[in-house]
Amino acid sequence: MAKRTGKTVVLSSKPKIIGNAAVVGKKEGEGPLGNYFDEVHEDTTMGEDCWEKSESELLKRAVNLALRKSAITADEVDTIYSGDLLNQCIGSAFGLRDSNMPFCGLYGACSTMALSLIQASLAIETGGFNCCVAATSSHFCSAEKQFRYPLEYGGQRTPTAQWTVTGAGAAVLQKSDSPLSPYIAQVHIGTIQDFGIIDSTNMGAAMAPAARKTIRDFLTDTATRPEDYDLILTGDLGSVGSELLKELLMREDNIDISSRHNDCGLMIFDLEKQDVHAGGSGCGCSASVLCSHILNSMRNGEYKNILFVATGALMSPVSSREGESIPGIAHLVNIRTGE
Amino acid sequence: MAKRTGKTVVLSSKPKIIGNAAVVGKKEGEGPLGNYFDEVHEDTTMGEDCWEKSESELLKRAVNLALRKSAITADEVDTIYSGDLLNQCIGSAFGLRDSNMPFCGLYGACSTMALSLIQASLAIETGGFNCCVAATSSHFCSAEKQFRYPLEYGGQRTPTAQWTVTGAGAAVLQKSDSPLSPYIAQVHIGTIQDFGIIDSTNMGAAMAPAARKTIRDFLTDTATRPEDYDLILTGDLGSVGSELLKELLMREDNIDISSRHNDCGLMIFDLEKQDVHAGGSGCGCSASVLCSHILNSMRNGEYKNILFVATGALMSPVSSREGESIPGIAHLVNIRTGE
Repeated sequence: MAKRTGKTVVLSSKPKIIGNAAVVGKKEGEGPLGNYFDEVHEDTTMGEDCWEKSESELLKRAVNLALRKSAITADEVDTIYSGDLLNQCIGSAFGLRDSNMPFCGLYGACSTMALSLIQASLAIETGGFNCCVAATSSHFCSAEKQFRYPLEYGGQRTPTAQWTVTGAGAAVLQKSDSPLSPYIAQVHIGTIQDFGIIDSTNMGAAMAPAARKTIRDFLTDTATRPEDYDLILTGDLGSVGSELLKELLMREDNIDISSRHNDCGLMIFDLEKQDVHAGGSGCGCSASVLCSHILNSMRNGEYKNILFVATGALMSPVSSREGESIPGIAHLVNIRTGE
Repeated sequence: MAKRTGKTVVLSSKPKIIGNAAVVGKKEGEGPLGNYFDEVHEDTTMGEDCWEKSESELLKRAVNLALRKSAITADEVDTIYSGDLLNQCIGSAFGLRDSNMPFCGLYGACSTMALSLIQASLAIETGGFNCCVAATSSHFCSAEKQFRYPLEYGGQRTPTAQWTVTGAGAAVLQKSDSPLSPYIAQVHIGTIQDFGIIDSTNMGAAMAPAARKTIRDFLTDTATRPEDYDLILTGDLGSVGSELLKELLMREDNIDISSRHNDCGLMIFDLEKQDVHAGGSGCGCSASVLCSHILNSMRNGEYKNILFVATGALMSPVSSREGESIPGIAHLVNIRTGE
C-alpha cells in the first residue's frame, strides 16, 4: 500500500522503468545530448504531409522502440498514458490510434512526462495493472503553427522565448525484480500556481512559482534537503525560469538547490550556438532528456536518486488573447536505483 | 489490492462517491432531467465576458457544490482529475486555478467523466490518496466557437449532429463506510477504435465501435450478461450512435443490451421538442446526467448496479481538415451500491 505524507505519496510497489526511448529531430541531434537519443531524424516531416502527423509519428516510434527495448508487446500493456500540446491532444490520439493499447489521455502541457509517469506508476501500485507506458511528444513546427505564427512568416523571437523541442519520449513501467532498472519511489502531484505573468513568450517565469511550490512542499513532506539528491531536474524552465526558481527558493524558503539543479530546457540545446534564446520547451523536451541521457545515467550508476520536476504552462492562445495570465503547474517524480 | 481479468480491474477499496453535483444551462434545465440538477442557469454567460470563462465558472460551481455536499474542504482533496474539450483544456485549468487542490489534467473528449472517475478511484485504490474529485464540463457556446461556426453565423445543423451540453458535473470520491454511497466496483480503460468515419457531424457513428468493444470486452472479462446490470448507460452516442451500438453488439457479438441501455445524450434533451437533432453531447452531458439523476437514483435504491460507459471522439478541427477519420474511445465504470 502507498503511504502519504502531506501531498507526497510513497509507492510500495516501486514500479520499475524497464525500458525507455527518445526520438528527436535534427536540431536536437546537433545539441549537447545528440549522442544519447535513440533516433535522430534529419527530416522532421517524418515523411508525413502535415506537422501534426509528423509529431504523431515521433511518438509512435518512441513508444514502439521503448516497448522493443523492454521486450514487451503491445498486447502486454495494460494502459498507455500520453498527451501533448496540440488541440484535443491529437498528437497522442493519432499516434496511438492503431496501437491496440488501452489509452488514457492526459493534458499537462510541458509537465506531461511527469504526469504520465505518475499515473502509470499509480496504476501499477493498485496491483491491478502489470505494465503501463508513459509517453509524450512535441514538434517545433506543429507548436509554432498552433501557438504562434506560420513558419513562413519568420517571426522574431524575444530573448525570453523558448524553442519547442521536436521529440518524443516513452518509458515502460512494470513491477519487476530487475536490480538495474530505475524505479518510481515517490510522486507529488502539483497545484496550479498563477502569479499573474501575462507574457506568453516568457513561460519560464510563469512556471517557476509552480516548480518552487512543488519542490519546497516535497522537501518538507519528506524532511530531506537538496543535497540528498544527485540531481533536481526541472523541465522546462529554460534560463529565465531556472534563475527565477533558484532565487525564489533561496529568498522565500531558504532552500539552495544550485549545487543539484539542472533543467531539461538548458541541457538539450547549446544556448550560445543554437539560437534558441532561453532554451528548449515542449512536452518532448523533458520527455526526450529523461528517456535518454538521464535514465541511462541511472542505469549506469551515475545517478542513484533524482527528482524529476516537469513544469507546464496551462494556457492557450485563446486565454492569452482574452487577457488571462498563465497558470503554471509542476509535478514531481522521485526516481531511484538500488534498494 | 486490485485484481485484473483481461482489461477489467476490480477495486478492493471500493472508493465511494460521497457527494456529487451537476450545474447546467437554461436549455438543459428545460429538458426531461431539469428538476434533478443542482443549479440551472438562465444566463449561460455566468456573468463572464467570454464563453471559455463561462465554462470555467460552471465547472468551479459544480466542484464547489459537490465538495460542500460531501462536507469536504478543498484542503482535504488529495487530487482533482479534470479535463474538457477546449484547446489546452483551459476550461479546467482556469476553473480550478484558484482551487488549491493538486490537479491532474485529462483529455478524453466526451469520455472525460468516466476517465476522471477511473483515475480518481485508482489513486484511492493505491492507499496513498484519501479523497479525490472527478469532474468535467462543456459549454454549447465555447464548443460551437471552437469546433464549428461563430454563433452569429446561424449555421444549419445536419440531422446526425449532436448538441453540446452546457453543463458540468463533479463527484467526490473517498474510501468510506457510508452504506448509502454508490462505489466504484470495477473499471475498464478503453482502446482507441477507428472505423474510418470522417463526418465530424456524426460523432455517434464514430464512437459506437469503441463503445461496442468496451462493453463486449467487459462482459467477457466478467462473465456477465447485460441483464446482470440495472442500466448500461452510454454517453453520448445520441440517437444515431445508440442504434448503431445496439446493432453492432447484436449482429457481431450476439449481445442484446436493448432492455438495459440508455444514453446520456438521449436523456438530457427531449429530441422531439428541443431541436437538438441526434441528442446531447460534450463532456458535460454524461457528467451532468451521472452526477445528478443517475447517482441520486442509486442513493435512492432505484439502481444498484450500473455500467457507465462514456464515449469520446478524439479528433480536432485540424485533424478533420487534414482528411483524417475520427478515432473513438469508450471508458467503462461499474458503479454499485450495497455489498
